[in-house]
Amino acid sequence: MTRSSDSPLRFALLGAGRMGAEHGRALVGLPEARVVAVADPVEEAAQRVARLTRAARTYRDPLEAIHDPEVQAVVIVTPTSTHAALIEAAANAGKAIFCEKPVAADLGETERVMRVVEERGVPFQIGFQRRFDAAFVQARARVQAGEIGTVEQFGATGRDPAPPSLDYLRLSGGLFLDQAIHDLDIARFLVGEVEEVTVLGDARVDPAIGEIGDVDTTTALLKFVNGAQGVIQNSRRAVYGYDVRTEVFGSGGKLVMDATPKTPLLRYGEGVTMDHYHFFMDRFQDAYRAEIAAFVASLRAGEAPQPGPRDAVESLRLALACTRSLNERRTVRVAEVRAEAGVPS
Amino acid sequence: MTRSSDSPLRFALLGAGRMGAEHGRALVGLPEARVVAVADPVEEAAQRVARLTRAARTYRDPLEAIHDPEVQAVVIVTPTSTHAALIEAAANAGKAIFCEKPVAADLGETERVMRVVEERGVPFQIGFQRRFDAAFVQARARVQAGEIGTVEQFGATGRDPAPPSLDYLRLSGGLFLDQAIHDLDIARFLVGEVEEVTVLGDARVDPAIGEIGDVDTTTALLKFVNGAQGVIQNSRRAVYGYDVRTEVFGSGGKLVMDATPKTPLLRYGEGVTMDHYHFFMDRFQDAYRAEIAAFVASLRAGEAPQPGPRDAVESLRLALACTRSLNERRTVRVAEVRAEAGVPS
Amino acid sequence: MTRSSDSPLRFALLGAGRMGAEHGRALVGLPEARVVAVADPVEEAAQRVARLTRAARTYRDPLEAIHDPEVQAVVIVTPTSTHAALIEAAANAGKAIFCEKPVAADLGETERVMRVVEERGVPFQIGFQRRFDAAFVQARARVQAGEIGTVEQFGATGRDPAPPSLDYLRLSGGLFLDQAIHDLDIARFLVGEVEEVTVLGDARVDPAIGEIGDVDTTTALLKFVNGAQGVIQNSRRAVYGYDVRTEVFGSGGKLVMDATPKTPLLRYGEGVTMDHYHFFMDRFQDAYRAEIAAFVASLRAGEAPQPGPRDAVESLRLALACTRSLNERRTVRVAEVRAEAGVPS
Amino acid sequence: MTRSSDSPLRFALLGAGRMGAEHGRALVGLPEARVVAVADPVEEAAQRVARLTRAARTYRDPLEAIHDPEVQAVVIVTPTSTHAALIEAAANAGKAIFCEKPVAADLGETERVMRVVEERGVPFQIGFQRRFDAAFVQARARVQAGEIGTVEQFGATGRDPAPPSLDYLRLSGGLFLDQAIHDLDIARFLVGEVEEVTVLGDARVDPAIGEIGDVDTTTALLKFVNGAQGVIQNSRRAVYGYDVRTEVFGSGGKLVMDATPKTPLLRYGEGVTMDHYHFFMDRFQDAYRAEIAAFVASLRAGEAPQPGPRDAVESLRLALACTRSLNERRTVRVAEVRAEAGVPS
Repeated sequence: MTRSSDSPLRFALLGAGRMGAEHGRALVGLPEARVVAVADPVEEAAQRVARLTRAARTYRDPLEAIHDPEVQAVVIVTPTSTHAALIEAAANAGKAIFCEKPVAADLGETERVMRVVEERGVPFQIGFQRRFDAAFVQARARVQAGEIGTVEQFGATGRDPAPPSLDYLRLSGGLFLDQAIHDLDIARFLVGEVEEVTVLGDARVDPAIGEIGDVDTTTALLKFVNGAQGVIQNSRRAVYGYDVRTEVFGSGGKLVMDATPKTPLLRYGEGVTMDHYHFFMDRFQDAYRAEIAAFVASLRAGEAPQPGPRDAVESLRLALACTRSLNERRTVRVAEVRAEAGVPS
Repeated sequence: MTRSSDSPLRFALLGAGRMGAEHGRALVGLPEARVVAVADPVEEAAQRVARLTRAARTYRDPLEAIHDPEVQAVVIVTPTSTHAALIEAAANAGKAIFCEKPVAADLGETERVMRVVEERGVPFQIGFQRRFDAAFVQARARVQAGEIGTVEQFGATGRDPAPPSLDYLRLSGGLFLDQAIHDLDIARFLVGEVEEVTVLGDARVDPAIGEIGDVDTTTALLKFVNGAQGVIQNSRRAVYGYDVRTEVFGSGGKLVMDATPKTPLLRYGEGVTMDHYHFFMDRFQDAYRAEIAAFVASLRAGEAPQPGPRDAVESLRLALACTRSLNERRTVRVAEVRAEAGVPS
Repeated sequence: MTRSSDSPLRFALLGAGRMGAEHGRALVGLPEARVVAVADPVEEAAQRVARLTRAARTYRDPLEAIHDPEVQAVVIVTPTSTHAALIEAAANAGKAIFCEKPVAADLGETERVMRVVEERGVPFQIGFQRRFDAAFVQARARVQAGEIGTVEQFGATGRDPAPPSLDYLRLSGGLFLDQAIHDLDIARFLVGEVEEVTVLGDARVDPAIGEIGDVDTTTALLKFVNGAQGVIQNSRRAVYGYDVRTEVFGSGGKLVMDATPKTPLLRYGEGVTMDHYHFFMDRFQDAYRAEIAAFVASLRAGEAPQPGPRDAVESLRLALACTRSLNERRTVRVAEVRAEAGVPS
Repeated sequence: MTRSSDSPLRFALLGAGRMGAEHGRALVGLPEARVVAVADPVEEAAQRVARLTRAARTYRDPLEAIHDPEVQAVVIVTPTSTHAALIEAAANAGKAIFCEKPVAADLGETERVMRVVEERGVPFQIGFQRRFDAAFVQARARVQAGEIGTVEQFGATGRDPAPPSLDYLRLSGGLFLDQAIHDLDIARFLVGEVEEVTVLGDARVDPAIGEIGDVDTTTALLKFVNGAQGVIQNSRRAVYGYDVRTEVFGSGGKLVMDATPKTPLLRYGEGVTMDHYHFFMDRFQDAYRAEIAAFVASLRAGEAPQPGPRDAVESLRLALACTRSLNERRTVRVAEVRAEAGVPS
């Protein structure tokens, strides 16, 4: 992909739902980028996001947008089941690719598609937006600078205000692939690769979730390759709001990324009360913008975007190891999970 | 100003400096608005913001942008000394106006121009962005809903990391007009009009500031018309960063808008440390975007934007009363400050 | 006063009310002290505190306890109106004296009695317990070590949950002598002496407080001798609890002693809520113990206890200056308030 | 044990070390209690605590103090290895017993001695002081009142500033019996009994700790009988201080008992910094006093003190299950650990 350094990069947005609008808003604020096309089977949604992004063209079929000769890069925010095919098509068309996680729920398919991306040499970034939150960015830099010494313990909590619909959950690949994967990726980001996992999980929020073979409340014990110990607790329902807390403890100190108050307002009445985030897109709005800006900056600098194809593969492998530990009620070595492993049945 | 409800409002940005870029970025993210022109005597700056905002045209002379027939609304972010003339020209041309504070350092001039705006019936909003910060918005709603009962005491702190240049200060109208006016406006926003002020002030940060007749460290005692008591402390230099804290205390409780940590990261080492904002545009970035969005929403709804011409006049009057109290070393009734009052000599 | 260094100091507690019990509990935990007598006109109260403190004797008349030859030191926690006479008697009897604030509501009387103390050379400590709170102790040390550079601004808030009875208020000397004096003393402790004050005050909590010539809601503007600026806001009623916050700002940083949560418990529900202190003796319980321990330690070391007679005089003078500013609606120089000044009429 | 309700309970302190002094200080502040004897093989230590507590007699041999006919209750703060024999002697002598944890490192011995206590019918309290911390007390009450609904997840962190000496560790029974037992007991206190545990542990702080067969860094995964999931992370070294954080999450909300700032002082410089506790006796000083007060109150009310013999047994069983999981690298059902299980070899 060659381009003159002073003309903006031309994007197609594949998908015009909530995340499509969000990423469109990020792109429209970047002078180095321009949205030229929006694709969505729902014409009205495509039009709405095209207006928002000043895009000239809309398509119903994302493949047409991929093959639009003016398009240099695509942002894939279509339903998960279509990610792999669209990535593959875009890679074959030589377009730079940003794709919401996951590539696929199947490790074999994910590895295959990531190999296509690598062979074609197109830039690829996977949407783990937390890596672009100012607190996590700074935490990683401080860990790598040795500020907390050798990392010894990791702990994370990830809870959503309420479970998604059963229809959504049926296609989600299960809690670890759909929700916990963000915490698992951050564990890799801050501490390193995981060697083995032991998982407890249950459907405590809604028995219907159990009936479709999924869980809504999980606790994972992690042993990292470097010897550090970790825990991750997830829940599909926190009545008080969105709850993300991460802690990295080492021989030289501790870093905590807590759930901040949503605003600086404190109310003194019966106790002192502050507000809490109720929605992940509120909590991570700046991170969503920053990840798109980082993708654009990588493209302009000619550098490989981060997190890339290997992160897509390894975070999925870890999520599948957790799922297997849950299903088989035993400690699972992450390396056991190989390409032939599919979605949990 | 008539327009079809489905075509975006067409804006000219007058001024292409830091705030011009900021407001441009806000406008470009709003599908209901479009920047069609950017005016700045520095051609390169105008071009840069035009690229950022996808504006088709640039002008060197803001009057030309005002008279561009395609332009329906202007955002004035030119140097303060030009505000009054541009507002007047835009009002006479029937354009909607958003203007950074202040209209002028002179109350007579401010009142005259605001009367032109009111006579022409053009929408006008003055840039007190703090009123759009989520914490202040919520605080006002809670005060008005009676959540803290009768307001009895108000307290505010406003400190900047470092003083601006002497060149800037010479034209600024003094600390109360330039810096404290934000705290004074918030006092009016949350509690109501002020009856009298008693002010202490000194040049403690830099004697050169005293030599040009200004101060850098002030404390104001306020008596509100409704009987509430208030204090505001300002400083031009806080080595630890940007420091804005506001408290409203009433018979039924207390609301505090404290300086939040800049990120959710806590560092445990020698004590527990969190980061602080060092720049007002970081702290209030969302508020800057929200004020522009509110301006656009008011225009589309055909409602008068807030804060409007009367807020421009009354917050200035209050700042001038503080300046007079400082200069004359006495308690000053705000109503003493009439249109004939000019900038502090 | 001579004593062998290995026998404990023998105390009499004058007054067996709530503060008597509190100070008794502090003394009984100190191996270097022993309570040998408790005096209170209410026999039953004296007996109760004697049991608590293992004191051998009770008296109805505090003068008898003062003259008990075994007694080396007295702790005066009788009603305010009796303080001066008991201090004088104890000084004349050569006993070391700890006395709850104030010595008297009258500056002339206070100066006279403090001169007796100084002439007799007996150790004397006045009960400004906040000076022994760990946060204030550390703040003072940091200010004096130059950690925040030159002090430029001081701010304090002092609010009680609810006003005392009108009977109490009638004898209290007014809000500045009774309540604000703690904040005024801390202003002197952390910043230095005050040059002039300007005060707003009103009876907003309860009109009956106004009818007896007192106020319940005040705001004071302070100009310190060293040029620093200060504000203090007080109220007799904070529905959310006891509210003490102090801030010292300087050229090198800022120290804040905020109202801490009462316990480390955070409750996540509708917002995140922490508990608040509702009672000054809870908030300052450790400080009350520490001030008695410091008094005992001073006696054993043969050093003058702090805060001493001059603090009793100067904090009172400052409170009287505030009262005068309130009554005469003008800025008052603290030095105007001389010994002949009495309680506010 | 009979006694007239108006004479104070007469105590012997067995052990005059740091905890002996601490508990002595608590007793001396309670009018319903009196220390009559202190026993310690180090005469000087016994004398020092006797002075502090106004105790009339000292003994070298704790058995003599137990058999002192004036003594009604004993507080056992001798070395751990002597606890069981002293409890048994005191129970046989009909004395009320407060004993620091643990009774013994051996479950069989613990059960045997607790049965003696139960058969003799003497009041017995085990020293899990955290149960008396205001935050934990309130958390338990809120959980039991259903405020957070069904408990679903528990998380705790317990870290000490620095490891004890190797000499101490050799006799300690291992990290789970010595340190983590407090977190395990709180898990039982707030959530209920534990069904199975899976533990990771390593000597990462100091290899010498590994050489004596102990670990210094552990993470435990807990499955509670009621289906809740839990995690506990412990470390023997946190360079930033003492770190205790506990979280209980349920269907109706979340309670967090975080490590509070040590004082209300915030320092604004490079970031905003607050102080941290560095010593468990600072953090839990009030709890240590409250547990003794509760013991005395139970005795006076004729009620069984809490936590009692069953808590001594069950918290030990849980700690032993963790130790076994660590040693055998497998998930261990708590019920597997029976009386015949001894200290980990």
